[in-house]
Amino acid sequence: MKLSSLIEQIKLKKSYLCVGIDPDLEKIPGHIRNQKDPIYTFSKSIIDSTVKFAVAFKFNIAFFEAYGIDGLVSLEKLIKYVNTQYPHVFTIADAKRGDIGNSSSRYAKAFFEKFGFDSITVSPYMGRDSIEPFLSFENRHTIILALTSNSGAEDFQFISSEGKKVYEHVIVESKKWGGNENMMYVIGATKAIHLENVRKLIPNSFLLIPGVGKQGGSLEEVSTLGLNKNIGILVNSSRAIIYASNKGDFAEKAAAEAKNLQVRMELILKNKQII
Amino acid sequence: MKLSSLIEQIKLKKSYLCVGIDPDLEKIPGHIRNQKDPIYTFSKSIIDSTVKFAVAFKFNIAFFEAYGIDGLVSLEKLIKYVNTQYPHVFTIADAKRGDIGNSSSRYAKAFFEKFGFDSITVSPYMGRDSIEPFLSFENRHTIILALTSNSGAEDFQFISSEGKKVYEHVIVESKKWGGNENMMYVIGATKAIHLENVRKLIPNSFLLIPGVGKQGGSLEEVSTLGLNKNIGILVNSSRAIIYASNKGDFAEKAAAEAKNLQVRMELILKNKQII
Repeated sequence: MKLSSLIEQIKLKKSYLCVGIDPDLEKIPGHIRNQKDPIYTFSKSIIDSTVKFAVAFKFNIAFFEAYGIDGLVSLEKLIKYVNTQYPHVFTIADAKRGDIGNSSSRYAKAFFEKFGFDSITVSPYMGRDSIEPFLSFENRHTIILALTSNSGAEDFQFISSEGKKVYEHVIVESKKWGGNENMMYVIGATKAIHLENVRKLIPNSFLLIPGVGKQGGSLEEVSTLGLNKNIGILVNSSRAIIYASNKGDFAEKAAAEAKNLQVRMELILKNKQII
Repeated sequence: MKLSSLIEQIKLKKSYLCVGIDPDLEKIPGHIRNQKDPIYTFSKSIIDSTVKFAVAFKFNIAFFEAYGIDGLVSLEKLIKYVNTQYPHVFTIADAKRGDIGNSSSRYAKAFFEKFGFDSITVSPYMGRDSIEPFLSFENRHTIILALTSNSGAEDFQFISSEGKKVYEHVIVESKKWGGNENMMYVIGATKAIHLENVRKLIPNSFLLIPGVGKQGGSLEEVSTLGLNKNIGILVNSSRAIIYASNKGDFAEKAAAEAKNLQVRMELILKNKQII
């Protein structure tokens, strides 16, 4: 998917919402748990009910791998369904991969070609040659972990050297590897205080911002600091949407949560005179 | 697998060799490529022919994921085969995973419980809560990327702060999370010059050392600098062994390469009076 198409969709849906698909058999409604492919059935229902309010879906690969081959078969079916049914939706493999070049090119092949995702999250620890293989795919997007939403982010991402923290080194260095058309960054909503600084380094890059909702980040705060003239942000919410209810009304409740975020996003976009 | 069993196996086989399983359909012998499950058939032959000389097998997950569900089914069959046929062999999922705690616990479940590996490589970029879920499994080992063998390692792992490089911060900080019984470190053979320094920080930890062979690291050099009183190193070779030949004799040639390394390891262990 081209970046321009994503921006177009955001303007059309008046939403920069990304719904995170983290299927957990212990949390999904009981009547689905007993079906043949509960992971697929549950996730498909969530997608169908929230797609009106969201421009992107982020598939947390850990939650599929946890169920072994069965979980990965469900993932394959799901991404095929989305690509067929909703071709204008932006899909993210939240896989946080990264290895020596020879191996990273295999991961890129797996997620971009085999599964057919538009984008993948990658860890920058191993540097340039671990990320470049992902960047060579046309109309695919490599989303580099810069500043993550978890508490452990402070262990190494905040190490300071030559006036810059490690996450800033990652941003500055990676700008040499790709551009806005093939590279985005993860910036956790819980680290909103640093967004102003991030925007000085990469004013035009798209940011994937997880951590709104259960993790405590504020939509209004990250939007004020993160939005740019091309929108420039995707804000992700997972658990607050997909587990809004664990009863028969789970899809409606998920849609209501997604709509709530979309309405607030529409207001923000209008206030900022972006739409 | 307990660490003490691994050390016992090393003394028994007089080898600290780990064979890296990176199956590539373009490189495996033609007569296998046309079989029903070439990835499994090829990898199984390599394992059967080299297991006499190796104490560990490292499965590069990228090479399996690249073939989608088929590749992962082959992986599942292979690890089941190894666990049944060679229960004293130490298995490594070279997966380089790592995510927020909630997700990392899923990856841990996937590789330790679903697939049944003894250990997994993880990326430290996201800090403590991204690694701790792996550490809670008994007799399983979490192998943290510290200093990797690729050229990109220099981009961020060598950033210097307060007298320590980032990879040293990773080592020092992670010592608070676990101990020798559940934590190991990846130190690339191409970075042997830093091994002396690594040993000062973690004299007793086990190190997984890839990068000998095609990547240019020297077995003798890393052994001299890395071995400790409990052996303390696993040296990995992948391509030089498994692609020693792409003809009918590939298994014999792989065995010969593995044996060559084992013989050199035996000599080193004797010279150091470890065995």
